[in-house]
Amino acid sequence: MALIFDKSYPPPGTAPGTLSTDDKANGGVQRIQVSPCIRGHWSATSTVTIEDVPPTAAADDFHWIDVQGTPSVAQLHRLGERLGLHPLAMEDVLNTGQRPKADDYDTTLTMILGLPLKDDDGALHIHQISLFLGKGFVLSITSNGHDPFPEVRRRLQGRHGRHITEPDDLLYALIDAAVDHAYPVLDAIGERVDALEEAILDNPGMETLHALHGLKRELIVLRRHLWPTREVINQLLRDHADVFTSDTLLWMRDVYDHTVQVMDLVESYRDMIASLLDVYLSSMSNRLNESIRRLTVIATIFMPLTFIVGVYGMNFEHPNSPFAMPELGWYWGYPMVWLVIIGIAGFMIWRFKRMRWF
Amino acid sequence: MALIFDKSYPPPGTAPGTLSTDDKANGGVQRIQVSPCIRGHWSATSTVTIEDVPPTAAADDFHWIDVQGTPSVAQLHRLGERLGLHPLAMEDVLNTGQRPKADDYDTTLTMILGLPLKDDDGALHIHQISLFLGKGFVLSITSNGHDPFPEVRRRLQGRHGRHITEPDDLLYALIDAAVDHAYPVLDAIGERVDALEEAILDNPGMETLHALHGLKRELIVLRRHLWPTREVINQLLRDHADVFTSDTLLWMRDVYDHTVQVMDLVESYRDMIASLLDVYLSSMSNRLNESIRRLTVIATIFMPLTFIVGVYGMNFEHPNSPFAMPELGWYWGYPMVWLVIIGIAGFMIWRFKRMRWF
Amino acid sequence: MALIFDKSYPPPGTAPGTLSTDDKANGGVQRIQVSPCIRGHWSATSTVTIEDVPPTAAADDFHWIDVQGTPSVAQLHRLGERLGLHPLAMEDVLNTGQRPKADDYDTTLTMILGLPLKDDDGALHIHQISLFLGKGFVLSITSNGHDPFPEVRRRLQGRHGRHITEPDDLLYALIDAAVDHAYPVLDAIGERVDALEEAILDNPGMETLHALHGLKRELIVLRRHLWPTREVINQLLRDHADVFTSDTLLWMRDVYDHTVQVMDLVESYRDMIASLLDVYLSSMSNRLNESIRRLTVIATIFMPLTFIVGVYGMNFEHPNSPFAMPELGWYWGYPMVWLVIIGIAGFMIWRFKRMRWF
Amino acid sequence: MALIFDKSYPPPGTAPGTLSTDDKANGGVQRIQVSPCIRGHWSATSTVTIEDVPPTAAADDFHWIDVQGTPSVAQLHRLGERLGLHPLAMEDVLNTGQRPKADDYDTTLTMILGLPLKDDDGALHIHQISLFLGKGFVLSITSNGHDPFPEVRRRLQGRHGRHITEPDDLLYALIDAAVDHAYPVLDAIGERVDALEEAILDNPGMETLHALHGLKRELIVLRRHLWPTREVINQLLRDHADVFTSDTLLWMRDVYDHTVQVMDLVESYRDMIASLLDVYLSSMSNRLNESIRRLTVIATIFMPLTFIVGVYGMNFEHPNSPFAMPELGWYWGYPMVWLVIIGIAGFMIWRFKRMRWF
Amino acid sequence: MALIFDKSYPPPGTAPGTLSTDDKANGGVQRIQVSPCIRGHWSATSTVTIEDVPPTAAADDFHWIDVQGTPSVAQLHRLGERLGLHPLAMEDVLNTGQRPKADDYDTTLTMILGLPLKDDDGALHIHQISLFLGKGFVLSITSNGHDPFPEVRRRLQGRHGRHITEPDDLLYALIDAAVDHAYPVLDAIGERVDALEEAILDNPGMETLHALHGLKRELIVLRRHLWPTREVINQLLRDHADVFTSDTLLWMRDVYDHTVQVMDLVESYRDMIASLLDVYLSSMSNRLNESIRRLTVIATIFMPLTFIVGVYGMNFEHPNSPFAMPELGWYWGYPMVWLVIIGIAGFMIWRFKRMRWF
Repeated sequence: MALIFDKSYPPPGTAPGTLSTDDKANGGVQRIQVSPCIRGHWSATSTVTIEDVPPTAAADDFHWIDVQGTPSVAQLHRLGERLGLHPLAMEDVLNTGQRPKADDYDTTLTMILGLPLKDDDGALHIHQISLFLGKGFVLSITSNGHDPFPEVRRRLQGRHGRHITEPDDLLYALIDAAVDHAYPVLDAIGERVDALEEAILDNPGMETLHALHGLKRELIVLRRHLWPTREVINQLLRDHADVFTSDTLLWMRDVYDHTVQVMDLVESYRDMIASLLDVYLSSMSNRLNESIRRLTVIATIFMPLTFIVGVYGMNFEHPNSPFAMPELGWYWGYPMVWLVIIGIAGFMIWRFKRMRWF
Repeated sequence: MALIFDKSYPPPGTAPGTLSTDDKANGGVQRIQVSPCIRGHWSATSTVTIEDVPPTAAADDFHWIDVQGTPSVAQLHRLGERLGLHPLAMEDVLNTGQRPKADDYDTTLTMILGLPLKDDDGALHIHQISLFLGKGFVLSITSNGHDPFPEVRRRLQGRHGRHITEPDDLLYALIDAAVDHAYPVLDAIGERVDALEEAILDNPGMETLHALHGLKRELIVLRRHLWPTREVINQLLRDHADVFTSDTLLWMRDVYDHTVQVMDLVESYRDMIASLLDVYLSSMSNRLNESIRRLTVIATIFMPLTFIVGVYGMNFEHPNSPFAMPELGWYWGYPMVWLVIIGIAGFMIWRFKRMRWF
Repeated sequence: MALIFDKSYPPPGTAPGTLSTDDKANGGVQRIQVSPCIRGHWSATSTVTIEDVPPTAAADDFHWIDVQGTPSVAQLHRLGERLGLHPLAMEDVLNTGQRPKADDYDTTLTMILGLPLKDDDGALHIHQISLFLGKGFVLSITSNGHDPFPEVRRRLQGRHGRHITEPDDLLYALIDAAVDHAYPVLDAIGERVDALEEAILDNPGMETLHALHGLKRELIVLRRHLWPTREVINQLLRDHADVFTSDTLLWMRDVYDHTVQVMDLVESYRDMIASLLDVYLSSMSNRLNESIRRLTVIATIFMPLTFIVGVYGMNFEHPNSPFAMPELGWYWGYPMVWLVIIGIAGFMIWRFKRMRWF
Repeated sequence: MALIFDKSYPPPGTAPGTLSTDDKANGGVQRIQVSPCIRGHWSATSTVTIEDVPPTAAADDFHWIDVQGTPSVAQLHRLGERLGLHPLAMEDVLNTGQRPKADDYDTTLTMILGLPLKDDDGALHIHQISLFLGKGFVLSITSNGHDPFPEVRRRLQGRHGRHITEPDDLLYALIDAAVDHAYPVLDAIGERVDALEEAILDNPGMETLHALHGLKRELIVLRRHLWPTREVINQLLRDHADVFTSDTLLWMRDVYDHTVQVMDLVESYRDMIASLLDVYLSSMSNRLNESIRRLTVIATIFMPLTFIVGVYGMNFEHPNSPFAMPELGWYWGYPMVWLVIIGIAGFMIWRFKRMRWF
Repeated sequence: MALIFDKSYPPPGTAPGTLSTDDKANGGVQRIQVSPCIRGHWSATSTVTIEDVPPTAAADDFHWIDVQGTPSVAQLHRLGERLGLHPLAMEDVLNTGQRPKADDYDTTLTMILGLPLKDDDGALHIHQISLFLGKGFVLSITSNGHDPFPEVRRRLQGRHGRHITEPDDLLYALIDAAVDHAYPVLDAIGERVDALEEAILDNPGMETLHALHGLKRELIVLRRHLWPTREVINQLLRDHADVFTSDTLLWMRDVYDHTVQVMDLVESYRDMIASLLDVYLSSMSNRLNESIRRLTVIATIFMPLTFIVGVYGMNFEHPNSPFAMPELGWYWGYPMVWLVIIGIAGFMIWRFKRMRWF
């Protein structure tokens, strides 16, 4: 299930910047891919160990270092030393579950973004992507082993689409890829909302309600992730506009539009789910009404009849009294009782028919 | 039914600006109408093929190129080359279901607006209108085959109303026409709200609830479309005021007022529907109360009576005991029982009458 | 009933500024009263026809032209020509149901305000007041035949109260009169809320709920009218402060305070009504509980008893069996059964008493 | 009960500044206390009649004129003349029920504040306090006879606490005293919320709900009073900071903090009450469930049993037929039926036990 | 239970700055620890009495004076005199339950923060931390005896983590420690939300609802504490940035991020709890439906049967009438009745099966 609180935090009062998280939980680095860009041309991407990560590149050139999996403390220390990362930035990498944010530590722009992904069980997880834009390098660290950038890597060499030649182009491409991961997730949510809508209008049950609650939970998680993402990209456009060429800025604004659009969708789904809940609750009370109605009909018809037949089951007997249930001895007594019974039942049914209770 | 998520999106990481959407789904161009305006005078409108779309006009003159139907990738490429459109703008044209927005790509002002329309089944769709104001041309692309601008085309030649002689006049007229399409949609919603109100105050049922939910859904979709529309027009007034003459600006503010008014209506309808839902739920619980009351009345009257007649149906018999149901043998036994029965029933009915349960 | 959507709108795409509304629906001018102010002194007010409306006055002087009833297109054209009104302003006069707004067309300040009025059936209507402040004239047009300014007219000549000698004084007085029409309406709503509160705490029924819904509807309409009114007056104070002398500005701020106060009241009533609805729904579920409880009590007491008397109504008989309901033949059999019955009934009643179900 | 609409208003269109309210309703001045401050030293406070109110004091000196009770029109006129009050300010004094506000009329700073007080019946009233800071005088008018400033008066002479020597010090002390009157009111509300919480978790009933509604009503009234109070004090700090010495400004910010804190509390109580209402409604539906369950248990156990004993109450008899209820004549017939009855009842009870319905 | 209103306040009108709270309730100072920092090096921390608190240190040096427990009036006076604290600041220390705030009194920056802590009963309390940054000293006062800064004290001497050498570093460390106390509290809330979610989806009852209400209460208290905390830290960053070195500012922004993240979590939990309440209420109404259904099934099956056996319990007898219940004397009469009974029961069961009521 989608977790709401999955941030790991040190005991209050610990010196911030202390790198001390549980290495085992984090899983360690699973793959490092380095793509060097020399004077606007991309060399082949190579998979390296943490020891072979190149230091910051010469002027005009830069490397894209893509780390898959949260590094252990030791691994991150090595990375940090080689690339000159700030302790706070490194702490954020380790303490996954951060809120999206952008900070400018010395000469390195640091961004924390989230990557909404459905795992194999269909549960939603927000994995953490940390992006660093420094002198001569772009570093991306994805908190789980997933590779979110295969399309970007393909474009480095390819001819189609806009060509990436500058670090800010690459940063934009990475942000764009991270943000666009929300579309398939929302698409799946949309399909489930549609399915639930059909189920609720048709034949709702407890499992429909649980599904509704599950969806709401996912939207809460998504929303908590998307709001700050929007904020971060806006902040980038506002405060760090100098990082980008005016051309890339135009494309960044497009990413911003995407986050706004995605937030809009989340809000719309929330509204939809609220409306579906109303329909569900009304259906429940409708069903209740129907059961009660049926019960009332049955009771209203049979209670008087049972009373009547009870009357003629009484054992009054007095040889001389003309009042000791003489009906019992009449020639037409029994048929008369049936007439009365059928009359009462017919009248009741007629009344319920008129009230449209049948 | 009104779709909430109907945006088409490429796989995350794809280079933005890639024109790659499914041509078949988009349907292709259905008609292109070109109206040239030479020194403030409009020549006759002609229907042309994509090959005959004129390039940007000479100084002082401009064309209005009105494309009906989303172009295919190839068609849009040709259009884009001839008129110098930006890749991002062209991507937005293809990926219909965009959020309304305005962007300034180089020298071309690009706007994405929505056109709320009821299709033949009464379902609400927000079609996409893309407007481009460049040097020497105004380009409008409507995502479906519908022609939203017949009135505008009539005014080009006509004498009544304000005469259109400049590109910004035309842009204003197109925006105004697009925005005003919300009025008939809201008018229809208003009528349905009124009808539902009557139905709910009269005789609500499950189908009333479903209609309420359907209306809510439409308002969610409309709202998601109208909020950014208002924003876009405000942004136009604020950031792109230089595009318009001071006279046209006055008229643009009028359009802005329309969007605000329309949003107001949507919010008011939301409030109304929320209030109607409350009435509906209360009616349901009222009905339940009535059924239960009826059941209680019936049970309270007949259960004691059935007990009494049951008592005299018991077979106690002892030749010598004076306690073996002697009532059964009394002269007035049977009438007495009836007196008791009628007394109890009368008392119950009197009490329920006093409690106003009848 | 209070209408939510009562704006008349032309077909989308029509040239704005086209004066084309249905003259019959609007009703035409019913009375025009002209009050000339010559060098700070008011001449007598005269009722004139549209032909006799004076053109703008000489320097230092001004007329107050008060039109009651929405003019027909022809009448408005004449008025517009004589006083130099902008087409958009005239369109707003005709298309009643406008959102309150203030615009500055050329030299004429135009304001659209609303006049909340209860008609004879007690239904709330927001009539439209259009105010124009031009060189040498103040024009007021009220959309229905109602005269909202008798008090103002009295003050023109009178001695009590602040004397009106300038156009901005008059404009202020008219705005103030229009805004203050909300007080009696809110007063009436307040009384109905109080009455409903009593009814709901006492003895709520379906008609209480319908009254609650009716109130909510009126508040939705009022709110939709009052929000923009507040905005308009604020905008006047902010952007058009030059229209007013510093002294009048002080009084205008007082009007602004009134609109804020009125909005506050509307919001408070909304909160009250929401709270009353909660009380209503809880009362309903309370009643349900009581009915069900009564039913349960009756059934729990009589069902076991009916079972017992049923047992002794069985016809088991075996001459030699000691098990064939020998109780029936006991000397104390019948009284014993009554003891059991009374015992069971007493125990049940005692338990229900202890649970406070009686 | 706490009134929501208790503003007195003149007919719309009346000249503002007209002093015309109902003198009888207002009650007239009940006491006037004048405390002169000569060169930073306070002379003894004397109770005077309206005729003896001193005019504005000489330079460096000032009087504190404390009026208890809303003055009549004549009385206010006299006061206004002597101290030079603005007509609008005087109108606000008479039309009690004003929204808190601060205005700068000529040289006199005018503030309207509210004084939340519980009257003897425990009903909440917001009385009006009007404060005027002019040259040489501070005037305070409390709308009812209550004296809200005994502590302040004591401090004038006393030695403990901060000494008041300037008009702005006094104004601050009066505002502080007025604002702090909200604490005991909120304290009382807090106690009632706690009591209600206990009642609702324990044994809720209709009277709990009515108490909840009463609290909500009071919070609506308080909130309507406190929001603008906060605003007014903020406005004072922002726009009228020149009135205060930098030292007093520090203390004024403390008052502002108080209003914020008080608003926070009101919002928290609203949240609490909303949560309590949810608990209440759930308790109701829980009870309903229990009643219905009990009813179902009773009916499910006794209906089959009654049917069975009914079977053996039938009078089938045929001398030769082996099918004419031979059980009735069996030796073990009667005990067998009891076995069946006990078996069925036991099975039902066992099932209900397993479902935890007991 | 978490208290909402636990502020102690003097009677309205009392001179602010008066130190007069109930010393007994506050408990007095429990420990004072002084850590002197001489030229960037920390001497050993010593526990002192209030008499031995050192006055402000020489230039370049500073002391950290950590007071545990709210001082009595006399103790605070002594502290205040020695360190030069402002009366308002001292008042805030005594009147615990303050809203978080930051003020700049003369040369001393004063901050009030809250310390959310679970006491031994699991009840949430917000204790008050007062921080003072003056010339030569940092003073921290914790309202209860708890020591929130053991980790910070350890870091003073230690080598790991960022070294504290300046007063602003220390202030930052203290704020950071206070803010981070919210994490374990939220962590515990998160676990309870998860447990409640399971309970509600499984088998909800009244105690689940009470737990839900308890959680909501805690979130209301936390929220009321966290909102102003965020505000205060933002205000520090905005208005008092000069207090911090640019390096520490970076770290302060990290604290700000923490408060934002914590607020996000609180809001998400609120949403979760609202959703859980919906699920709870729906479960209740589901159960009701099931009980009613079962009741209806039982009644619908057995009522007609009871009627039938009642019929044959009637005592009609007429020697010669062919209508006097001849069935009773038929050879196959009894089996026939059973056939009818089984037929009716079977039909009912079949219908309910088809309606999926079983």
